[in-house]
Parts: sequence; C-alpha cells; structure tokens
Amino acid sequence: MSTTDAHFLFTVEARDGRARAGTLHTPHGDVPTPCFMPVGTKATVKAVAPRSLRELGAHVLLANTYHLFFRPGADIVAAHGGLHGFMGWDGPILTDSGGFQVFSLAGTRVLKDEGVEFSSIYDGSRHLFTPQSAVHVQEALGADIIMCLDECAAGSAGRVELEMAVERTTRWAAACKEAHTRPDQLLVGIVQGGVDEELRRRSAAQLLDIGFSAYAIGGLSVGERGEEMLQVVSLLDEQLPQDELRYFMGIGDPGGILNVIARGVDVFDCVLPTRLARTGTALMRNGGRVNLRNARYAADLRPLDEACDCPCCRTFSRSYLRHLVNQKEILASQLLSEHNLRTLLRLCSEARAAIVAGHFAQYTAAVAAQNLSAAEPL
Amino acid sequence: MSTTDAHFLFTVEARDGRARAGTLHTPHGDVPTPCFMPVGTKATVKAVAPRSLRELGAHVLLANTYHLFFRPGADIVAAHGGLHGFMGWDGPILTDSGGFQVFSLAGTRVLKDEGVEFSSIYDGSRHLFTPQSAVHVQEALGADIIMCLDECAAGSAGRVELEMAVERTTRWAAACKEAHTRPDQLLVGIVQGGVDEELRRRSAAQLLDIGFSAYAIGGLSVGERGEEMLQVVSLLDEQLPQDELRYFMGIGDPGGILNVIARGVDVFDCVLPTRLARTGTALMRNGGRVNLRNARYAADLRPLDEACDCPCCRTFSRSYLRHLVNQKEILASQLLSEHNLRTLLRLCSEARAAIVAGHFAQYTAAVAAQNLSAAEPL
Repeated sequence: MSTTDAHFLFTVEARDGRARAGTLHTPHGDVPTPCFMPVGTKATVKAVAPRSLRELGAHVLLANTYHLFFRPGADIVAAHGGLHGFMGWDGPILTDSGGFQVFSLAGTRVLKDEGVEFSSIYDGSRHLFTPQSAVHVQEALGADIIMCLDECAAGSAGRVELEMAVERTTRWAAACKEAHTRPDQLLVGIVQGGVDEELRRRSAAQLLDIGFSAYAIGGLSVGERGEEMLQVVSLLDEQLPQDELRYFMGIGDPGGILNVIARGVDVFDCVLPTRLARTGTALMRNGGRVNLRNARYAADLRPLDEACDCPCCRTFSRSYLRHLVNQKEILASQLLSEHNLRTLLRLCSEARAAIVAGHFAQYTAAVAAQNLSAAEPL
Repeated sequence: MSTTDAHFLFTVEARDGRARAGTLHTPHGDVPTPCFMPVGTKATVKAVAPRSLRELGAHVLLANTYHLFFRPGADIVAAHGGLHGFMGWDGPILTDSGGFQVFSLAGTRVLKDEGVEFSSIYDGSRHLFTPQSAVHVQEALGADIIMCLDECAAGSAGRVELEMAVERTTRWAAACKEAHTRPDQLLVGIVQGGVDEELRRRSAAQLLDIGFSAYAIGGLSVGERGEEMLQVVSLLDEQLPQDELRYFMGIGDPGGILNVIARGVDVFDCVLPTRLARTGTALMRNGGRVNLRNARYAADLRPLDEACDCPCCRTFSRSYLRHLVNQKEILASQLLSEHNLRTLLRLCSEARAAIVAGHFAQYTAAVAAQNLSAAEPL
C-alpha cells in the first residue's frame, strides 16, 4: 500500500526477485500490473475500437497531450467530460505532458526557465508550454494519470546538456506539483539523466524530495545500448520507493518488456505494436517478427500464431493476412494491430501470473527459449 | 416455394402490393429478404471485420471474381475450402462473374463470340474470360450464389450495341448453365437491355427460356434517369416469375432501395455505404448524407443518428467522429462503415417487417417524410 491519495492506491501483491505483481486502483477501475498500455496518440488506438481493446485485455490507454491540445483542442475534449467520454473508453487513461513531442518533433524550440516555446506541427503557430500549462491542459483532458512536463534530452546529448535537462526537469516537476489541483488525477514525476548514473541518481533524489506517488523513467529507448538502458533501470529500482508505481516510458518489444519487469517496472507503453501492424508486420510473443509480405506465406493456411487467442489468429490464415496486406486493405491494419496488442497484453498477464506463482525466472527463460526457435521459418 | 434445387429453396412469405418478404435458404444459412448485401470486393468488406458484420445484421456478402482471380488467385482461395474459409465468413456469399470489371475498368477489350479478352489491371497481362471460365473460377471460389457472365453495355450505348449485348448475354447465359456443375451453388441469370423496354423484355424472355432459379437485373445504375430505371424494374416485375428470387445489381441509397423493393426486388448490393464512409460521409436512413468534415460538427456532442443502434452511434459524438475524419484516423473508416451498413441493413429489416404487417406503403411514406427534414441542419 502506498499512495497517500485515496483515489490511487497502488498495492504490490507479490514479488519475485525484483519483479512485482500489483494493482493500481484508479477512479476508472483497477489496473493489474505489470501492464502494457496501448497508445492512442490522437484519442484513438489506431485501427482498434475501444470495445475491441477491452476484449483484447487492455486495462489502461495512453493519449498524447501535444496532439490533442492542437486537434481538436482541450476545450472540446473537456466538453465531453474529458477523454473517457470523448474516445468512448471508460477505463483508466494516462496522458503524457506533451513535452516529448515538443522536444522530438521538428521545428525551432526556445528553452526558457518558465517553459519551452515551439512551433505547432499543425499550423506553424508559436506556443509556450510551461509546467503550469501542461498540468492545466491535462486537467482539462481529464485522464486518470497525468505526467509532469520534463526535458527529454537527445540520446546524443553531452553531460552538460544532460545535467541542465535534469535540473530543469526537477524545477518543472516542482512547479507541476504546485499547479496540480485535481485529486482524481495521479501526477507522475519523470526521472531524467540519460545513461549517466550520477545524473540519474541526482534526478531521482530531487524528485523524491519533491515527493510523488508514482515515478516514470523517461529519456530511454532513444538510441542507447540495451545494457546501458537496463543498467539505469536497475539503478533506479534500488533508489525509487519499493511500494510506489514505476512507469518505463516507451518500450514495446517482448524481450525488453520482460527485462524491465525483471527490474521492478510496473507499467510501460509503446507505439510499436500498432505501428508494426500498419506495415504488415506481426509481433510474436517470442520476440520474432513476421513480415506478411513475404511470398513464403502466400499459400500458408496456418494461423499467424497457433498459440494466440486473438480474433485474428482464431479466424484467419497467414495466406489471407498476406492478401490483405498486399492489397492495402484496412482490415489488415485492424487484425494485425489486434494481434500485436494481444501478444503484449497476454505476455503481461502471463508474466504477472508467473510472478505471483514465484516462477518468473522460469517464465522468462521459457520465452527466451522460444526466442531461439524464432530464427526458424514459422 | 420455387427453386427446383433443394439447396436453394426461395419462399415468399408475404406480399404487400408488389413488395415481397421472403427467405432464401442456402447451404450457409438463411437470408431474409428484402436484403442488402455488403460488398467485400477483395474478400473483405473494407474496414469491417466479419464478426462486426454479423453484429450489424448482415446476412450475405458479395465478393468480386475479377479481383480475386488475379489476387490472390482462385487456387489459393480454393485451398482454404473456398471464400468462406478464406475470409472468415460462415454465412452465405455471392460472387459476381467478373464481367462488370472487365467492361468497366480501363484497358483494351476485344469482344469475341467465345468470351472477352482484356488486360489485367494488376500487371497488364492478357486474359480471356469465357462463360465456362467464369463459372469454373466461381466454382473454385465456392460462393453460395454465382453469376452468369454477361455483357454490361455502357449507359451511353446505342440500340444496336445494346441489342448485340443482349444477344451475347443470352448465349453466354446458356453456356454458363451448361458449364455449371456444383449443385450447392445457385447460378443466377442476368437480364440486360439498358432502358430499352423491348430489349429488356426480349432479354428476360430468352433467360426464362433457358431457365434459372433466380434472376438479376444488370446494366442499371449506370447513369440513366431514376424514372427510367424504375420503369425497367416495374416491367421486369411483371415478366419474371413471381416466386423466384430477384437481384438488383448495384443500388445503395435508402430511397432507391425502397423503390426497388416496392417493385418486387429481393436482394441488392452496392459499395456506396463503405465508400462514402471512407470519405468521412455518413448515410442516414432518411437518405440524407452527413459530411463530418463540416465545421458545424466541431463541438456537436450528439450521436450521429440518435435513432441508430450501431456501435458508432451508441458510443461516439459527431465531434469525435469529425476529429477522427480530419486526422485521417483508420477508426473513422471503421466506425462510419459500420454505421452506414447498419443503416441499410436496418432499413431492410424494417421494410421486411412492414411488408409482413401489410403497411409497407405507410413505412415508405414515413421514411419519405423524414426526407423532408433532412434539409434541416442535423
């Protein structure tokens, strides 16, 4: 039991090594962890309707503040009673702060102490995002979980730049907490510092001083080596409170997910499963990827993944899926998005069961063993 | 009771004026008529999964022989046990002969007595479709209802050209019947003749001489005036057997559907509902169309159609739908396709109930009265 806010009790129910199985209670329902959060950038998980997400076992969705701020605008979302009403999803929702898009999308940015000035990708208009405005917009969007505005330095940033980003992220986090008013929204602090261990420790310590009920690990999955990434996660697992929710921002490959779960991470998100689907690529639980354009599937009557319980695998052949992909049929994106999401959602529920049963290491080993056979033709 | 083939009993259960309520029994289930058939050109109704089609109340789907012949090829479909297995739809399916695409798609055609030679739109290769090959390919595709190869003359064709098309269509129909071997497939003859009453009578008489268990009205909805079209349908209603299935090829607007039902038509198809959906346009039961790009819907919190029971109308606002359309989100095509199909499927089931109850004229008048208010802003 942890968060002081009664709306957002997070309970860790089982531990197996560093891995944890828990439940986050939110005003829109419970989230069993570990949990993959499908990304609905513009208030829709691309090509998947909310009722299908529910059937696939999704518990919490993510939406992007930057995009929704510009289209359709926070006022229109608020007029629907917030994102839940707007996008027809009555389960928990998380919004990011918009900062990642400000720092990663093209255009001239001016960093100021009070915030960051940038040009809209929609119409080129100039805007200033501040910690206060990021919280204000997210309060209007009405998600259950909202994020502090942070500075996500480029993967190539030098130490001075990284250090400035950490200090600014801390100041902005304090300002976000100060600006935060809605008790039915959980505000999450974001640890920065690239792969510099000292800076990561400093960032975490400063955020702990401010005091949040949940912590995110930002600024990874931006080009660093896998071992560097995991080293940072391990380091933070030691430093962050053992009974607070941890959110790794941006990981969506099965192997990576199991690796961060093994290091104490509870929730994570990524566009990978739905983006791969729209290119005709299926994600397999063993980490393999199946490019359905491959001629080898032309007359392959088997399901994509015989062990998968998704609507796509229960009904259609690889041959049919290849036909849809090659003919650029919308149904290809729908079915493959559903399969790819189900693969990650099932991985998480299996991982959770393994943690509760105390054999998470065996489970990851079994999945890794499957990895060896992924090199074989399906 | 009519068809001699036990697999395809068609029973007319009620008549109200010229309108009929019936049931077509097929090896893959019963089709209550009048019935709109959603079009799945390339073995998928664009943007709508089979299980959604079932939920929307679809009874029979249409697929296109021309496209499937080239991609993925009839052999691959046959390897799945036919279209039902290939596209994951266990209900009745109808395939066209491929003739309409040969005559309507670009490219040089050479009409011969034995068939029509043309270039594939996929790779430019030359092919000859004959009555025999059209039946053979459709037997491999395995639909429940298959169509004779016909010559669909252009709407601008003169009388000599139309007459030649009628005579050729008759010869090809006889050849198709001769080539037809599968008793579990219903072969449908197609009446041609443009809007020339004498040629229509001649075409119908010749097909009746050959003898089919179901008749289609082809060569309409190609640019003729509405009254001309309905005149042909009325004329054929008198001439075609009163207890055989009639299929009007290519009509999808609510008013047109009610007009052909009123003149004794049982089944019909059109790409209109799904094609409109992909342009961001909703089809209303009263015949109105709602272009969701219109700024008037930006903050409109009402459902698309308050009287509609489709998943789209039960869950989402016009404002949200407009956002999806403007952002080119795939979900827009999914939701609007479902709504547009549901609108036509519901229209047909309501029309059927009205025929059975003996107040079809009142029903069409009520829908027409709704038409008057369609000019009002929604």
